[in-house]
Amino acid sequence: MIGPEIDRLIQLLAKLPGLGPRSARRVALHLIKRRDGLMAPLGVALAEAAANIRTCSVCGNLDSRDPCHICADGSRDSTLLCVVEEVGDLWALERTGAFRGRYHVLGGTLSALEGVGPDDLAIPGLLERASRPEVREVILALNATVGGQTTAHYLYDRLAHCDVALSRLAHGVPVGGELDYLDDGTLTAALRSRRSL
Amino acid sequence: MIGPEIDRLIQLLAKLPGLGPRSARRVALHLIKRRDGLMAPLGVALAEAAANIRTCSVCGNLDSRDPCHICADGSRDSTLLCVVEEVGDLWALERTGAFRGRYHVLGGTLSALEGVGPDDLAIPGLLERASRPEVREVILALNATVGGQTTAHYLYDRLAHCDVALSRLAHGVPVGGELDYLDDGTLTAALRSRRSL
Repeated sequence: MIGPEIDRLIQLLAKLPGLGPRSARRVALHLIKRRDGLMAPLGVALAEAAANIRTCSVCGNLDSRDPCHICADGSRDSTLLCVVEEVGDLWALERTGAFRGRYHVLGGTLSALEGVGPDDLAIPGLLERASRPEVREVILALNATVGGQTTAHYLYDRLAHCDVALSRLAHGVPVGGELDYLDDGTLTAALRSRRSL
Repeated sequence: MIGPEIDRLIQLLAKLPGLGPRSARRVALHLIKRRDGLMAPLGVALAEAAANIRTCSVCGNLDSRDPCHICADGSRDSTLLCVVEEVGDLWALERTGAFRGRYHVLGGTLSALEGVGPDDLAIPGLLERASRPEVREVILALNATVGGQTTAHYLYDRLAHCDVALSRLAHGVPVGGELDYLDDGTLTAALRSRRSL
């Protein structure tokens, strides 16, 4: 008989992605052993995040401020607008430190099968932002998946009449990648987009 | 640039066993998307557990009560005392529903290498409990590892003078196990401990 508090904790932990009942029990024991150093701070961090974090009304980023830190940062380049599927993609681009423009988070990809149309994503807002005079270039940084590329094609058509340059991320050999292990599609793309030295 | 609240949450999540920086970010996004249904309740559960859960002064179990639910349960058999290494082992035995006696959690195993001696574990308390008149049998339910078996041998010697029967868990073929995939040690143990039909 496990006590009700611990039982409830394990049940909630088991709902996290990548954790099953067994690993949830392991995490619960780990947390209980580190009550003051980890469990209590994590509880506070979760409660604060649940209370404070909201979706940025400008770009769709998640932050405790609205507009978010990136939208509110006057030092960032407002001529560049980078379109991503999810907030996780925005985080990945921010970690590189290679982009100093603005973002627009779609919140997913178009999918006829799952009934996701343009109005279910943040596409109306994107069209409005892309038509503002300060925006010069829209970078479609969508995943190289069927859903991502379908959405990129759609956005390309919709943005064609705006007075902005359109671009997408380069396809090619990942840095550190070995040709022998690459799929044919990537290798073909890398060959076609070869750069002269 | 990720906001400071989310950044702190990811750093805390990355300290959980089995989660690295990448899976911590995935868990954080999952939680933020389920703010009301999962994130807030998990925060409350963690804060309550951190504030209320303590180690049972009788058996070493973790619970919000001291003595724990098991020690306080008058319907359990006080003649049987089951010795385990960790609270996780107690949970595993409780899940079977096959044991209705009392537990004693050692908190680890003896280890000359790591400087863990009898007084670093809950062995003095075990000797005291085992010498009480109501206890008839002590089950050494320790892991079938070097550390577990070393500790079991030591406890066997220390408990030999007490007026209790001593037992250990059976070794043998796991239920559902196939002989072809078993290690030699398990198969040898299963053969030696064969039961007549």
